[in-house]
Amino acid sequence: MSEIRQDPITGRRVIIAAQRAHRPRQFGASNSLRQDEPCPFCAGNEAMTPPEVWALRDAQTQADTPGWSVRVVPNKYPAVERSVQSSAKSDHLYQAEDGVGAHEVIVESPSHFINLDALGAAGFSNMLRAYYERMRALKSDGHWRYLLLYKNQGDRAGATLEHVHSQLIALPFVPREAADEIRGAAAHYAATRRCIYCEIVEREIAADKRVVFDHDQFVAFCPYAPRFAYETWLLPKSHAAAFEECSQQNLTDFARALRETIIRLNRGLDNPPFNYFIHSSPTDETSSAHHHWHLEILPQLSRAAGFELGSGMHINSVAPETAARLLRDTLV
Amino acid sequence: MSEIRQDPITGRRVIIAAQRAHRPRQFGASNSLRQDEPCPFCAGNEAMTPPEVWALRDAQTQADTPGWSVRVVPNKYPAVERSVQSSAKSDHLYQAEDGVGAHEVIVESPSHFINLDALGAAGFSNMLRAYYERMRALKSDGHWRYLLLYKNQGDRAGATLEHVHSQLIALPFVPREAADEIRGAAAHYAATRRCIYCEIVEREIAADKRVVFDHDQFVAFCPYAPRFAYETWLLPKSHAAAFEECSQQNLTDFARALRETIIRLNRGLDNPPFNYFIHSSPTDETSSAHHHWHLEILPQLSRAAGFELGSGMHINSVAPETAARLLRDTLV
Repeated sequence: MSEIRQDPITGRRVIIAAQRAHRPRQFGASNSLRQDEPCPFCAGNEAMTPPEVWALRDAQTQADTPGWSVRVVPNKYPAVERSVQSSAKSDHLYQAEDGVGAHEVIVESPSHFINLDALGAAGFSNMLRAYYERMRALKSDGHWRYLLLYKNQGDRAGATLEHVHSQLIALPFVPREAADEIRGAAAHYAATRRCIYCEIVEREIAADKRVVFDHDQFVAFCPYAPRFAYETWLLPKSHAAAFEECSQQNLTDFARALRETIIRLNRGLDNPPFNYFIHSSPTDETSSAHHHWHLEILPQLSRAAGFELGSGMHINSVAPETAARLLRDTLV
Repeated sequence: MSEIRQDPITGRRVIIAAQRAHRPRQFGASNSLRQDEPCPFCAGNEAMTPPEVWALRDAQTQADTPGWSVRVVPNKYPAVERSVQSSAKSDHLYQAEDGVGAHEVIVESPSHFINLDALGAAGFSNMLRAYYERMRALKSDGHWRYLLLYKNQGDRAGATLEHVHSQLIALPFVPREAADEIRGAAAHYAATRRCIYCEIVEREIAADKRVVFDHDQFVAFCPYAPRFAYETWLLPKSHAAAFEECSQQNLTDFARALRETIIRLNRGLDNPPFNYFIHSSPTDETSSAHHHWHLEILPQLSRAAGFELGSGMHINSVAPETAARLLRDTLV
């Protein structure tokens, strides 16, 4: 089991997970696929992963056999794991606790697609259905305070296997970035009685300088202070704290919006490596008036380096107004 | 001039620096050097950079001509710039200010070395002399609250030019990571009347589980909660708040310690890409009793990805006890 340690100076948490050093890699040093090993995520290779916890599959097909369109399995090299009991160590300087949580992989296609774009409209709907079902299931466990759904596409965005997949980590606490965001939103609400995200959505649509597209229920824009070139946020226009409380109609519209965003990024930037994650509210704050769920897409065209690591500030050489113009003008 | 914007939710600052998009790159997509263009950092090509602000050079050689061993120039594509006046924009949601500061490049060798190791003992001394002189000079400007010296070695660590160099950025404020660290150290001091770094040094030397080497004046160890595999910190053993207040003897010992650390990383990990930075105290707190200057080296063997970006937590698959053992056992 991994261990979660806290830096004694800053309180910054890290997960020390030695078992993850044994992960297989489909990307070599030169970014090329190793063709000599079977892909554990392809249909037919179900035995290469732990047994599935959920799948969208054809009637009368058996678990862990072909016949699925999306399949969710526990991560074979988990950063955190379920445990009936957990222990903590603490002294004057150093604190650690067992790495308790859940770590799942959402395999988004039975075919060896490497670009999300290849999923098509139905594939995006299925993928978001899996996100929704698994976040609801993990929430109903009752053990986890925060659910983080994220995707790494491409070697330079940290993917180790290229077959399209996302990951979902459940934690018994709210991690730093999410906590900072929620704290900021709560402070704004306390001062103004308004959700800051709702205000930003109104402001961006009215100003129309950073908007990529504006659908009925969702808006995509490049945020005012983006860390990365072409960073794009996707938000529901009506206030909603938790992704996993989406209506079916919401989910359908979100699939369409996410697909359009990915297509624009791929065409505008020639299939860039990227990360995305969903920031939803903590599982016990899903009716929050101040926090508003959203998805952040972070293309990885340049690398955060010594300055970013030492300062915590990012240098971005593409203004969001320029980025939004390119993504908006890309034909889809 | 660049612009420093604040995310309205978290207060996170980013530098929007469009002029940096025009930087030349010695690394192609495949990590290989482009041989078709002259290197602006090689001796003989001094005219390709802005005029030098400092150099260690042979007697009777002219500025901006060969004859130097270390040369410091303003960054041609600066993230921040000096300005006689700066302006700020602020409204209900969005705040920005001019990107005022200084951004220098320390070219550490007249020859086209790409691995710091090639500098040799005299080269390390000269390099640290340049760090020291430039940090003192920028501090005496009186405009800057924080000086961040950092290095990116290798394409995967974010370097754009491979010729050995470091960078120094001066800012009129204390950036987030440094501020978090100083805040934590101040809280520890308030509670215990002791410098937390001095305590950690004592503790690590006594426990001897994470120490890489222990010299007279400096100690190198893998910290208890490292973000990256083989992350190593180098600290003066006696309390000292500011690097730029080092004695000459200190500087000599630091050069020896830093060189040994780099040699151990190179031999133990086959010349890994890495970042390092010096965390010194803010320019107006150089006699701080609670903050202790140090250098952090962060090898870039795996990539921070969606989970790290979304949570602010790192997953590290090499425990620091394992990392320290390898670096300690490497023959030098």
